[in-house]
Amino acid sequence: MEARNFSYQHLFDFSKSVFVSIGCSEEHALIASKVLLSADLRGVDSHGVARLSGYIRLWEKERINARPNIHVVHETPSTAVVDGDAGLGLVVAPFAMEVAMEKARQVGTGWVSVKNSNHYGIAGYHSMMATAQDMIGISMTNASPLVSPTFSKERLLGTNPISVSIPANEEPPFVGDMATTTAANGKLEMLQRKGQEAPQGWVQNKDGLPTTNASGVKEGGALLPLGGDREHGSHKGYILGSVVDIFSAVLSGANYGPWVPPFVSFLEPSDNPVGEGLGHFFGAMRVDAFRPANEFKQHMDTWIRRFRNSEAADPLQPVQIPGDVERKMEKERRSTGIPLLDPVVKDLSELAEKFDLSL
Amino acid sequence: MEARNFSYQHLFDFSKSVFVSIGCSEEHALIASKVLLSADLRGVDSHGVARLSGYIRLWEKERINARPNIHVVHETPSTAVVDGDAGLGLVVAPFAMEVAMEKARQVGTGWVSVKNSNHYGIAGYHSMMATAQDMIGISMTNASPLVSPTFSKERLLGTNPISVSIPANEEPPFVGDMATTTAANGKLEMLQRKGQEAPQGWVQNKDGLPTTNASGVKEGGALLPLGGDREHGSHKGYILGSVVDIFSAVLSGANYGPWVPPFVSFLEPSDNPVGEGLGHFFGAMRVDAFRPANEFKQHMDTWIRRFRNSEAADPLQPVQIPGDVERKMEKERRSTGIPLLDPVVKDLSELAEKFDLSL
Repeated sequence: MEARNFSYQHLFDFSKSVFVSIGCSEEHALIASKVLLSADLRGVDSHGVARLSGYIRLWEKERINARPNIHVVHETPSTAVVDGDAGLGLVVAPFAMEVAMEKARQVGTGWVSVKNSNHYGIAGYHSMMATAQDMIGISMTNASPLVSPTFSKERLLGTNPISVSIPANEEPPFVGDMATTTAANGKLEMLQRKGQEAPQGWVQNKDGLPTTNASGVKEGGALLPLGGDREHGSHKGYILGSVVDIFSAVLSGANYGPWVPPFVSFLEPSDNPVGEGLGHFFGAMRVDAFRPANEFKQHMDTWIRRFRNSEAADPLQPVQIPGDVERKMEKERRSTGIPLLDPVVKDLSELAEKFDLSL
Repeated sequence: MEARNFSYQHLFDFSKSVFVSIGCSEEHALIASKVLLSADLRGVDSHGVARLSGYIRLWEKERINARPNIHVVHETPSTAVVDGDAGLGLVVAPFAMEVAMEKARQVGTGWVSVKNSNHYGIAGYHSMMATAQDMIGISMTNASPLVSPTFSKERLLGTNPISVSIPANEEPPFVGDMATTTAANGKLEMLQRKGQEAPQGWVQNKDGLPTTNASGVKEGGALLPLGGDREHGSHKGYILGSVVDIFSAVLSGANYGPWVPPFVSFLEPSDNPVGEGLGHFFGAMRVDAFRPANEFKQHMDTWIRRFRNSEAADPLQPVQIPGDVERKMEKERRSTGIPLLDPVVKDLSELAEKFDLSL
C-alpha cells in the first residue's frame, strides 16, 4: 500500500486546527494533538492521526464533548476520582495524570481513577509524563469489548493496555506499554489488508475456537488474552485485562466489561449502561518516597545496562529495553517525517474539506 | 507417584514446631506456618510444606535469620521501605502488608517496597489480607533468576509473580495470582517426573532456542516470559517481570535481576550483590478512597456475575473468575486433607528426626 510522508509539525498543526474547528479551546486542542501525534512518532500508527476522524465522528454523534468541565469529584490525600465530562480522553488523561503527580508531591504517591471519558491515545504518553519529575508513572485504560476471557466465546474485555514508565539516570527511561492481549488489533488489520493469516493464539472464531483467520474478530470472534490459550497462560492475560477494567471503571464509576462504549461511531453504546463513559487509571510514585532519587536512578542505569548487554540468542537481534524501539522510531520520524497510508491521507483530506482547512 | 493425605491442622502444627525449633518466636512461627500452608490449601503445592526443608537449609547456611528485627527504614504518608533483616519472607511480607494497609487507612493508599527478605510463599496470601478491610491488595516479589528476557539466552529474571485481590459484596473476592512466565516451574517439574515433553512456548534451551524438553531449564536453558515468543507477546511478559523486579528491588535496595539470591541452598548468592536479599512490593487501596465501599462492592458483584455467566465455548468448561479454582481446592482440602507426594513426606520425616518432632 502506498504511503506519503508528512512532517510532525505539519500533522500537529492540522490536528490542532481540526480540534479547534469542533470547538475545543486552544489549550485542549494543543494537548490533544500532542498526545495523538505521540503515537505516530513512536510507531503506534493505529493510535495516531489515523484515529482523528474517529474522534470527530464521535463528536458529531454528541458522544464527545468539545468543551468539557473536567473535574475531581472525590479525593483523599493520595487518591482522586476525576469526571471527564465526556471530553476527549486525549485531554482528560493528562489532566488526571497531573492530579496524580500533585498528590505524589504531597504524600509520596497519587492514584486517580477516571470516569466519563473516551479513548485516551497511547497509554505510554501519560505514564511518561512522570519520569521527568523523578516519578514512576502508571497508566491504564479500558476499551471497547473485543477480547474473550479464557473459556468464553463472548467479548467482555477491551485490549486494556498497561503502561509503566520508570526514570533512570544516564540511560533513557524504561517505558513499558502493552495491550493485555497476545496481539494488538492494529496488527490484525495489517494482516487483513495483506490477505495473510494470523498466527495461532491471536484470534478465536465466533464459536470460541482457535483460528488463523485474520478477519476472525470482524466475523464475530474475539482477540485472545495474552497467553493465547489456557496451556500458554491466557488466564493470566485475562487477569491483567480484568484488573485494568476494574481499576479504570469499577473504582471510578465508568462502564466496565461488555458495557464499555464502542470507539466506532456506527455502533451504539449500551441502552443500560452500568456507569459513565469509559474509564482510566493513573498512578504516580515519587522515587524519593522510597530511597534517594540519585541512588534509585543509578541502580536503574545498572539494571538497564545489564539487561541490554545480556547475551543474545541471535547476535543480530540484541536484547532490548522496553521503550528502545519506540525511541528509535521517534528519532527517525522527527527527522524524516511520518508515513501515512493512502486511506489515512484520504480520511484526513475529507476532514480538511469538512472544516475548510488544508492538509 | 504415591501420595498420603494429612490434615491441615496436623501439617500446620508440624510446620510451626519446625519454625520454633530453629528459634522463631511463637508469633513468627505461627504466621510463617499460616502463609506456608495457605499454598497447600489453595493447590499451589510447589509453594507449601514441600518447601519447608528448603527454608531450613537456608537457615542452616545462615542465610535466613530466625530472630529478625523487621523494621521501616524510610517512609512518607503513603509509602515505606521495610528492611526484612534477612528474616523469613513468610513473616516479613505480612508485616510489610500491614504497614501498607495502615497507610491506606490514613491517606487512602499505602505502598511498601521491601529489601533484605527471602521467599515469601504465595503472592496471593498477602494481597488477600486487604479484602476483609474493604481494600484492594497488591503483592509482588522478585525471585531467583530462571527466566530469559525476549531475545536473550541468559537468565535475568525470576518467575516474578503479581497478585491482585479485590473485594466484592455477596460474591467472593477476585483473586488474581500469576507468575509472569508462560508456566510455573512447578508444572515443569511435574512433567519431568512423568518423563513428558513440555508444550512449545514454555522453555528455551541453553542456546536460547525453543525446546519441548521439560528438563531444558535444568540443562542451562530458561523459562520463557508470558507470551512465549516475540510473535505471541513475550516482550509483554518481559515487561511485567521487569516491573515486578524494579518495584520490589530497585525501589527498596534489594538485589535485582541476575543478582537475586537463589532459593536453593546449594547455590551461593552473588559475590558482588547490588543490594540486600530479595525484594517484595505491596500495595493497599481503600476502595472508599475512590467511591462509597458498598457501591464499589455491588458493582464488583455485577462484574463477577456477568463474567462467570458468560457463554462458554465448551459448556462443560464454564468461564471462571480469578480465585474460583483455588477456593474450590481449599474447601476440598480443608475437609479431606492435603495430599503430599512421597518425596515430600520423606523430606518432612527427615526434618522431624532432625528436630526430634513427630510428623
